[in-house]
Amino acid sequence: MCFPQLLAAQRPTASEQAVEQWGLYEITLAGPTAGNPFADVWLTAEFSSGAKKIKVSGFYDGEGVYKIRFMPDATGQWSYLTSSNAKPLNGKKGSFTCRAPSATNHGPVKVREMYHFQYADGKPYYPFGTTAYAWTHQPEPLQEQTLNTLKNSSFNKIRMCVFPKTYSYVEEEPALFAYEAKNRTKLANGKLKYEWDFTRFNPAFFRHLEKRITDLAKLNIEADLIIFHPYDKGRWGFDSMGMKNDLFYIKYLVARLSAYQNVWWSMANEFDFIKNKPREAWDVYSKAVVEADPYHHLCSIHNGTEYFDNWKPYFTHVSIQNGSTVEDFGRAVLLRDAYRKPVVYDEVCYEGNLPQRWGRLSPEEMTEAFWQGVIAGTYVTHGETYRTPGDTIFWAEGGRFHGQSPARIGFLRKLVEEEPGPLQLADPWKDHQTAQADSAHYLIYFGKQMPPEWVFSLPKKGAPPTGAVFKAELIDTWNMTITPISETFRLGDVKDYRVYDDGFKKIRLPAKPYLAIRLTQVN
Amino acid sequence: MCFPQLLAAQRPTASEQAVEQWGLYEITLAGPTAGNPFADVWLTAEFSSGAKKIKVSGFYDGEGVYKIRFMPDATGQWSYLTSSNAKPLNGKKGSFTCRAPSATNHGPVKVREMYHFQYADGKPYYPFGTTAYAWTHQPEPLQEQTLNTLKNSSFNKIRMCVFPKTYSYVEEEPALFAYEAKNRTKLANGKLKYEWDFTRFNPAFFRHLEKRITDLAKLNIEADLIIFHPYDKGRWGFDSMGMKNDLFYIKYLVARLSAYQNVWWSMANEFDFIKNKPREAWDVYSKAVVEADPYHHLCSIHNGTEYFDNWKPYFTHVSIQNGSTVEDFGRAVLLRDAYRKPVVYDEVCYEGNLPQRWGRLSPEEMTEAFWQGVIAGTYVTHGETYRTPGDTIFWAEGGRFHGQSPARIGFLRKLVEEEPGPLQLADPWKDHQTAQADSAHYLIYFGKQMPPEWVFSLPKKGAPPTGAVFKAELIDTWNMTITPISETFRLGDVKDYRVYDDGFKKIRLPAKPYLAIRLTQVN
Repeated sequence: MCFPQLLAAQRPTASEQAVEQWGLYEITLAGPTAGNPFADVWLTAEFSSGAKKIKVSGFYDGEGVYKIRFMPDATGQWSYLTSSNAKPLNGKKGSFTCRAPSATNHGPVKVREMYHFQYADGKPYYPFGTTAYAWTHQPEPLQEQTLNTLKNSSFNKIRMCVFPKTYSYVEEEPALFAYEAKNRTKLANGKLKYEWDFTRFNPAFFRHLEKRITDLAKLNIEADLIIFHPYDKGRWGFDSMGMKNDLFYIKYLVARLSAYQNVWWSMANEFDFIKNKPREAWDVYSKAVVEADPYHHLCSIHNGTEYFDNWKPYFTHVSIQNGSTVEDFGRAVLLRDAYRKPVVYDEVCYEGNLPQRWGRLSPEEMTEAFWQGVIAGTYVTHGETYRTPGDTIFWAEGGRFHGQSPARIGFLRKLVEEEPGPLQLADPWKDHQTAQADSAHYLIYFGKQMPPEWVFSLPKKGAPPTGAVFKAELIDTWNMTITPISETFRLGDVKDYRVYDDGFKKIRLPAKPYLAIRLTQVN
Repeated sequence: MCFPQLLAAQRPTASEQAVEQWGLYEITLAGPTAGNPFADVWLTAEFSSGAKKIKVSGFYDGEGVYKIRFMPDATGQWSYLTSSNAKPLNGKKGSFTCRAPSATNHGPVKVREMYHFQYADGKPYYPFGTTAYAWTHQPEPLQEQTLNTLKNSSFNKIRMCVFPKTYSYVEEEPALFAYEAKNRTKLANGKLKYEWDFTRFNPAFFRHLEKRITDLAKLNIEADLIIFHPYDKGRWGFDSMGMKNDLFYIKYLVARLSAYQNVWWSMANEFDFIKNKPREAWDVYSKAVVEADPYHHLCSIHNGTEYFDNWKPYFTHVSIQNGSTVEDFGRAVLLRDAYRKPVVYDEVCYEGNLPQRWGRLSPEEMTEAFWQGVIAGTYVTHGETYRTPGDTIFWAEGGRFHGQSPARIGFLRKLVEEEPGPLQLADPWKDHQTAQADSAHYLIYFGKQMPPEWVFSLPKKGAPPTGAVFKAELIDTWNMTITPISETFRLGDVKDYRVYDDGFKKIRLPAKPYLAIRLTQVN
């Protein structure tokens, strides 16, 4: 296998480079190889444009090569000056032009209006994510298949681990590791036992990860990158390196990756299941990530059974595991109220056929979870756990989808993106079905309920004035159909907290679950 | 009306007093009357017993009388030394004996094991509260009626305001105010308009409040005292005194009241509806209360539509307004998970017949709210809003209960207190009906569901080993009956996350809502 130095190879020398806004500008310098350059050499650069100054860390990329990466957040002329304790790396200067972003480049995702997200250029971003924890640790053809699957899906975020995973249905030994092995021995069970030098990284591992992050960026998919996880269990020891090595790893990882616009930091998957890291350690690690990242990428921490303190300032949003929050009405909004941040229900059990209850949602249940989340003004992440003879499980290793929810999730994403802004419940503690984007746009979801008819009515909170006329469409969220209703509806007076059509018109509903109604004001 | 100086009148002089643990020890001193003693004189005392030292603030009680109150938390010999900028109050010494508490005195309520409460002596405390915001501002006979109603109820906490309330159904002018009026004029609508001196308190107002808090203590009722509220609307101006006066009031209030063992601090009712106090101000006020209170009484803040940052360290527990959290299964536990503190759903709408939707719960709904809260390991507070010709509304002014939920809430309280410890869901994200106190004690609630039978089954999480035998009782939570089931049930093997009776026995249920089953291990 070959992992080219991604961008540098196709580029002129640093001082002549041009880069687009939120693109990746890279400086390559030759420096010392003696001793342990990862530990012995520090390298930073200050980038400036007008009054703006941004300090970033460089890193050692092996074989005497040092790099500094930078993501400019403004167009125009930029210059830089390096600092280092190694003379050949110190005091290097250069300048370059940052041009306007290309049409598909909207910049990194940020928080929008407390509960939602948008790209840096202001375009709304609604996360519709999936999960493939160890996809980058699989054989190359499988990784390519995963990318192809994602390309043909509607997912725009993926949860993925930096470190390899050992767990039910994920046993393979990866080709690359993040560290140099000092020693390796074959165990009785055929598996390899490594002794790592946690002070020396393996640049090839990181270059490969960066290639995959770039591949995702080309598909407009955010990489929700899991920095630590508990699925190691003594096999490689990456979950128990000790705080000093953990922080050394964070520093290196963030120096390498923070200039990639589609990176999100997920401090952990199931942080509370990593038994050797006490709760307090996550404050130290989270601060280390945020302080090392000059761009303030999105950052969260994902729980097992106990939530972390998601309100802490280093977390931009809340990443929750808890399927019960989106399996019925009235739940998803409660955590949003409590945390006052965007809430992504990043693990709500998975569509699949495993015996474990976390891995056996029906496709209808997985789809409903997304709808429950979205109408409550929150977001939900998909995962697929079908055990299919001769095939991988996407949730673990990537590969192909076998489930029926991805198409329905794509259908929902399209509906959400057609709204003029983020959805939220119009009357959040009293009506758990009626979401609105604004007073002219409503989406009403019935879930498993099958009422024979729906009397046109809206919460008075947020409703337009008497006389507003709405058109209605009946949405079958499972069959992915949108059927216009021939009548229109005209708002009458407020009656006991709700407004009705002035003739109390209603919509006859087919006897099916998972229906929704979309209302759009037409006058 | 006459408000005796509560305890001092019946007591010997300070140095000869004895006091019981968590009782109220009071020092009375004569001091200056010139100028404004409230503002000009400061007075503190350091109480010590062995190595323990506690500093408390005294206060001016009018007419040249200064007081210092102290609640000793340990038996034995205590001594004190006063400090003041007024010579007659400075350097006063004394000593007294603190004896063991009497049988009904369990001390102040504290947090127990993250999610629950107990008295200082270790006795569990399960809050079953009610609400009478302005009861102490009503005519004396009505206050006495309120106390009599409480005496004959099962409530052990009451939410009540320091300042008077003006709102629908609460219009009366109180007899006493917290401040001296500089001026008062009669408005066209017959109401009085006052001009207050916010630097001079009215000690009679506070002595009256203290008498009522003492009355509640005698009934073993905690006074959940609301320091600020929005129900003033320019009538008296106590919601808009400005930060300097607000802090002066907090200091005086806490100096007077913190030695009363049954005081809880509720920073506000509906804090976010007090429009002139920005969100940041509540940090200042909450810190001021906590720093002035040497005993660390329970402290919370209650919301309107937006929650405050309940995780902040000054809050011992979470006081939530949101009826939807306890109107269905699976919701109440979510906020507990998020906040990692005891959660009291202090306002979940009220049993009553008002046109407003917050004031028209049926008695069945009010009762179910308590059950939903309790099985989720949280707590719920009652309020009653029946408009009855010629009578007051208890929620506002106190008086009598007309509703049917208080008896059912008392029945639930008895069941809860019969458990060996606090209840919580055994499998919180998957089974929202099965609470347990320990592996031998379960309480299973069906709410509005009316299953024809219940197959004996428990979550494997927290269940006792195979072979455990349980007796069962059918509980009708509305009719308040407990009916033993003649059969017993013997645990078989685990099947898919649950354990069943080894013969798959089941319990036939009557076709009624609001049933529960209590299980007790008998072997």
